[in-house]
Amino acid sequence: MDNKTLLDKLNSLSIEEKIGQLIQLTGDFFEGDMDTVVTGPLKKLGLSSSYNVYNTGSILNITNPEKIIRLQTDYLEKSVHKIPLLFMADIIYGYRTIFPIPIAQACSWNYEGIEHAASVAARECYEEGVHVTFSPMVDIVRDPRWGRVMESPGEDTLLAKKYAQSVVLGIQGRNLESTAVPANKIAACVKHFAAYGAPVAGREYNAVDMSEHALREYYLPGYQAAIEAGAKLVMTAFNTLNGIPATGNEWLNRDVLRQEMNFDGVLISDYAAIEELIMHGYAEDEASAARLALLAGVDVDMKTAIYANQLKNVISGNDHMLELLNEAVYRVLKLKNDLGLFEDPFRGLQEIVKLSTSSILSDEHKKAALSLAEESVVLLKNENVLLPLSKDTKVALMGPYAEENSTLGMWAIKGEETDTVNLKTGLLKHVDSAHLTVCRGAYMMPVHARENLGKYADKLAAETIDEEVLLQQAIQNANEADVIVLALGESIYQSGEGGSRTNLTLPEPQLKLLHELSLLGKKIVLIVYSGRPLILTDVAEKVDAIVQAWYPGTMGGEALANVLYGEVNPSGKLAMTFPRSVGQIPVYYNELNTGRPNLKENGSYRFASRYIDEVNEPLYPFGYGKSFTSFEYSLLAVSPKKMKTNESVDIRISVSNTGTYDGKETIQLYIRDKFASVARPVKELKDFKKVFLQSGETKIVEFSIDEDMLKFHGRGMEYKSEPGEFEVYIGSSSQEILLSFSFIFLPEDKHE
Amino acid sequence: MDNKTLLDKLNSLSIEEKIGQLIQLTGDFFEGDMDTVVTGPLKKLGLSSSYNVYNTGSILNITNPEKIIRLQTDYLEKSVHKIPLLFMADIIYGYRTIFPIPIAQACSWNYEGIEHAASVAARECYEEGVHVTFSPMVDIVRDPRWGRVMESPGEDTLLAKKYAQSVVLGIQGRNLESTAVPANKIAACVKHFAAYGAPVAGREYNAVDMSEHALREYYLPGYQAAIEAGAKLVMTAFNTLNGIPATGNEWLNRDVLRQEMNFDGVLISDYAAIEELIMHGYAEDEASAARLALLAGVDVDMKTAIYANQLKNVISGNDHMLELLNEAVYRVLKLKNDLGLFEDPFRGLQEIVKLSTSSILSDEHKKAALSLAEESVVLLKNENVLLPLSKDTKVALMGPYAEENSTLGMWAIKGEETDTVNLKTGLLKHVDSAHLTVCRGAYMMPVHARENLGKYADKLAAETIDEEVLLQQAIQNANEADVIVLALGESIYQSGEGGSRTNLTLPEPQLKLLHELSLLGKKIVLIVYSGRPLILTDVAEKVDAIVQAWYPGTMGGEALANVLYGEVNPSGKLAMTFPRSVGQIPVYYNELNTGRPNLKENGSYRFASRYIDEVNEPLYPFGYGKSFTSFEYSLLAVSPKKMKTNESVDIRISVSNTGTYDGKETIQLYIRDKFASVARPVKELKDFKKVFLQSGETKIVEFSIDEDMLKFHGRGMEYKSEPGEFEVYIGSSSQEILLSFSFIFLPEDKHE
Repeated sequence: MDNKTLLDKLNSLSIEEKIGQLIQLTGDFFEGDMDTVVTGPLKKLGLSSSYNVYNTGSILNITNPEKIIRLQTDYLEKSVHKIPLLFMADIIYGYRTIFPIPIAQACSWNYEGIEHAASVAARECYEEGVHVTFSPMVDIVRDPRWGRVMESPGEDTLLAKKYAQSVVLGIQGRNLESTAVPANKIAACVKHFAAYGAPVAGREYNAVDMSEHALREYYLPGYQAAIEAGAKLVMTAFNTLNGIPATGNEWLNRDVLRQEMNFDGVLISDYAAIEELIMHGYAEDEASAARLALLAGVDVDMKTAIYANQLKNVISGNDHMLELLNEAVYRVLKLKNDLGLFEDPFRGLQEIVKLSTSSILSDEHKKAALSLAEESVVLLKNENVLLPLSKDTKVALMGPYAEENSTLGMWAIKGEETDTVNLKTGLLKHVDSAHLTVCRGAYMMPVHARENLGKYADKLAAETIDEEVLLQQAIQNANEADVIVLALGESIYQSGEGGSRTNLTLPEPQLKLLHELSLLGKKIVLIVYSGRPLILTDVAEKVDAIVQAWYPGTMGGEALANVLYGEVNPSGKLAMTFPRSVGQIPVYYNELNTGRPNLKENGSYRFASRYIDEVNEPLYPFGYGKSFTSFEYSLLAVSPKKMKTNESVDIRISVSNTGTYDGKETIQLYIRDKFASVARPVKELKDFKKVFLQSGETKIVEFSIDEDMLKFHGRGMEYKSEPGEFEVYIGSSSQEILLSFSFIFLPEDKHE
Repeated sequence: MDNKTLLDKLNSLSIEEKIGQLIQLTGDFFEGDMDTVVTGPLKKLGLSSSYNVYNTGSILNITNPEKIIRLQTDYLEKSVHKIPLLFMADIIYGYRTIFPIPIAQACSWNYEGIEHAASVAARECYEEGVHVTFSPMVDIVRDPRWGRVMESPGEDTLLAKKYAQSVVLGIQGRNLESTAVPANKIAACVKHFAAYGAPVAGREYNAVDMSEHALREYYLPGYQAAIEAGAKLVMTAFNTLNGIPATGNEWLNRDVLRQEMNFDGVLISDYAAIEELIMHGYAEDEASAARLALLAGVDVDMKTAIYANQLKNVISGNDHMLELLNEAVYRVLKLKNDLGLFEDPFRGLQEIVKLSTSSILSDEHKKAALSLAEESVVLLKNENVLLPLSKDTKVALMGPYAEENSTLGMWAIKGEETDTVNLKTGLLKHVDSAHLTVCRGAYMMPVHARENLGKYADKLAAETIDEEVLLQQAIQNANEADVIVLALGESIYQSGEGGSRTNLTLPEPQLKLLHELSLLGKKIVLIVYSGRPLILTDVAEKVDAIVQAWYPGTMGGEALANVLYGEVNPSGKLAMTFPRSVGQIPVYYNELNTGRPNLKENGSYRFASRYIDEVNEPLYPFGYGKSFTSFEYSLLAVSPKKMKTNESVDIRISVSNTGTYDGKETIQLYIRDKFASVARPVKELKDFKKVFLQSGETKIVEFSIDEDMLKFHGRGMEYKSEPGEFEVYIGSSSQEILLSFSFIFLPEDKHE
């Protein structure tokens, strides 16, 4: 539909029809007769009984293709304006083929793989009739207490930008010349705007307070990258930002998002966030909530009655508000048009259903999930090269995750445990049962802590074997084996939305099992399933190897087994710091130097920026991850040493695989701006290269530093570079710096 | 000296002499011959050998009156300009008569007592020749990991304001009509400007990042109150604020401090903070550090060579910088003039020394210290009214603090342990030794954790008795007693500057002692000595009563004994929240509501702002503290229910002492602004009254709410009230709300 026709369509709508386009409801509003709907869902949501559901613009979380066809057909029949419904769903890191959770994906540092994963998820969505998915979430997070760490790309801004871009391109395709979403692709929605990942004390939904400098420097670039990659939608955040709820924040959504970031797509509220403006103490009543949200540029009201009940009165007689309404409706119609819904309200779905040409859970999709899972695994410890295991080794697999299929994380709403390869199944692809015993060993969680676990609680409730019996079996199996593979972790319901925790150790029963096993003198390989960096400080001393598995998705067990048996050499690098203790949180690599840095040469000097009761370094730093092989770097060339405007510093290094395994290395380039008008971090990741090297192989790796990499937000929030000295650190983690040098940036108009 | 003469004096100075006024050195620069000084202190500090120490403007931390007389005499003899030296010192909560640490004082909610304490400290300073003390510190703090919690007035802005005002008036006197500091009084220096109490992760000297809204709403008012009370000096903070070091922050020190807050006194750097601009990555070299600090309005360079070595070159040929220099020097000269130093460079010191009329450690001073200590003690728990103890009770006093005199906190530089009444001595004033056994029971700290303890390390090193022997003695004493009084705590070197901790429990050996004792079935009264809220969650379950002693000062043991034996009914109320666990930090009472508050009626609903693994309320909330008696409140009158501009809501309540002990109650008034253009806290302390009630007595207590109490900083940082509904909570803590009602604020120009 051309734009003129679209505008004519907009102008032909009544006020109620316009408002309807801004409403998002669930499918139950369209099922059964009208009486049932009025006394059921309408009443429950508090929608006026006069509300015409056939004005509604979009539907949330229906993923059944037949049902989508039925609802769309019915809707087009009954609605007066005949504007197709939009179907949106929370498909975050896989539809049925579940990929590792985002924090795990970010540890792969493989953004082609991440883009491919997003395209697979979108493809499966597309085939099931979904038009929009609420992904990517690009909220930077420095506090592992927060549950949604699992959905985040971690603590670093560059990784968040890369993740944002890759996922948007994966979902929407690379057809960037046109605003149309390609056939077979769907629309992406970047979230949560803004800074949702920085709640006070890591407590879900808590207030966010930060300087505008920090907001612009660290938190906004991820969203911006998604928008630049063409993301069709943005979702508001639940939190207040410096006292103002994001969902009612005009400055944030109009000045920053629309004006500065040039976002002209649909801004949708998070679930019920417009209504929550009242709880925030920001909107006095529903009418005020509607007014504030529209003023703030929120186009779609997800799952509340506020816009539906209030917007007509709010707009009445107010030309400015009417204009804002028209703009909002136009954006929704434009999105539908970009998706081609006016031409085909089903986007080929009827054809797909008829032909049964589904790619869902196809071998190709599973292969992609396996591959990304293999790259997401992070080898944290490998004392005396215990890993990889030989196939002759007698392995005692144990722990609550030994045979657990609930390893998909909390946001895999369409993922099925029955599709999932668990660790035991994975190991049995490498060894026969003569070399593998399996037992549970311990409860997943203490009985008293089994609240809020959803259906998983029932599963645990069925766990009736006495803990002591479990332990004795574990000890017996351990004694008969060469190596213990201990699969521990937090339950998926201990992380995810609403999963904030104050205590980040492994659950008590599992710690007890680990302790008992550590007394046996056997080699222990610990596999950690979690949605966040856990505190592993004590645990790490009791085991020989640690493999951070995260929630590795449908193919997780196979990926882990491939790593354990050396078919895959682990190459994951942490996208988020592992603290040594909760008392160290937040701890992140790109901190400021302070006026009294904790210098090693000063020992435990009291008047330094340090804790007096703890090793001050984190347990495992950002960028860290071990390999079965070893790498050496050497600096070949840096030119020029003085860089002018429009020049770049070109760096050539050689990287050699000096070990006996083939493997991938992620070479990380950090920059430090030594002096600036705003203090700059001790280092910032500015580029990286992930390269594959056969054993003994050497490759040349090149980096190029341009002026953009030197820029930051000044005191007046201007984005700029400043002349001066910059230090460059190249290494295999933020702490293991293998090469370093400095250069001078001297813009043309400056003279020495 | 009149102002014209002062200006003439200023104009008569050479550049070197002017710069000298901005330099602060220690006394050793003036001792021995010039050669020794040049090769000693000058060289060590990096001062140019051409620097003339007889241009120096002020001296740090000399507190010996004879030495002050000698140095001043010598200086006036040798200096060309004959401008007397200023002597400044870190006298924070007592000179020789040590009062409870500031966080403890703040728990007294007795600001007359606090003012008196400051006046006593200042009096003792004055008699020893000091002119300026670096007090009060009014940094708001929400994170007990930070060591300087001990020096802070706690988490609340109103308490910080009251503390700021009281201490300044105590130090400088109430002679507010004149700018002269009264004879017998000294000058106060409020610190640390600004927001030093909010370092990331509670780590000393770490970066501070917050919104301008939070800065203005919560952090700045304390400093402002001190300035309004006439504080002669302000000290800069060590930290960066949103990337810019406070000591080089022109906006903070010129726009906010001087312009907005109307501060025209002396701005002094914290110790070496100008030099640290380089470490911050903010100043490229020493010249740049000098330039940035002067531009930012820092008048005095404490203890570095930066101003002395660099300022002349920095200023050379730059009229603007010269003007800034002149302004800075004028402020220093004005301070000297306000102190009367031009008339008497010794401020009566020679007389005092001659007459030996010292009030130091006088009975009156000790009485003041005792009284404030008694009011600072907070009774956290008193199961089955175990306290007060009867004099017939057989008490087994034990724990590392049973006979410990090192209970003054880390900033009592002139406090002497030998002057200190310890707990044992205090108890023996009430009972004879037949009713009291005393033993140590446990080590203060584990042997491996005895770093950075100063001279205290030697004391602990002398502790050679085997831990098991200590424990057995304790168990034996306990078994022979009716009640165990267990005096535990962190060592004073575990808090204070540079005393950030990640683990806030009691030290391990003490926890072990407590655990063993708890198995005996004896009643246990726990006395907690600490510089911060410790985590007492597990501990609280093992004891019957808890008395939070803080570091109670010279008379601490006597104050505590008076409480334990009921001679004093405890009335302290927490000025800072006691978290339940480190994972809950920061937790404070005046938080925002969020869009999904954790409502009790929702039980453990997942999608609320809460932790899933911990009781979400703190262990002991802000404002909390028990009494031996009980109080009842009743609301008599509230008028009007609708308040207009220039009106106030007048509240009359009656408070009754319904128990059997006389006692003091602190009635706290909190306000909640239900809806505003910036989300407001769930409650904010706006007023309180501390009243004494005999057993059975009832008193009328009145409050008055005016428009000022409703104001906050809006989006554009304008300070304003907004019409609407306000809820008022009156209670005995931030959680125990006994009365509540609401009123409407409806300014004149608004209509319903």
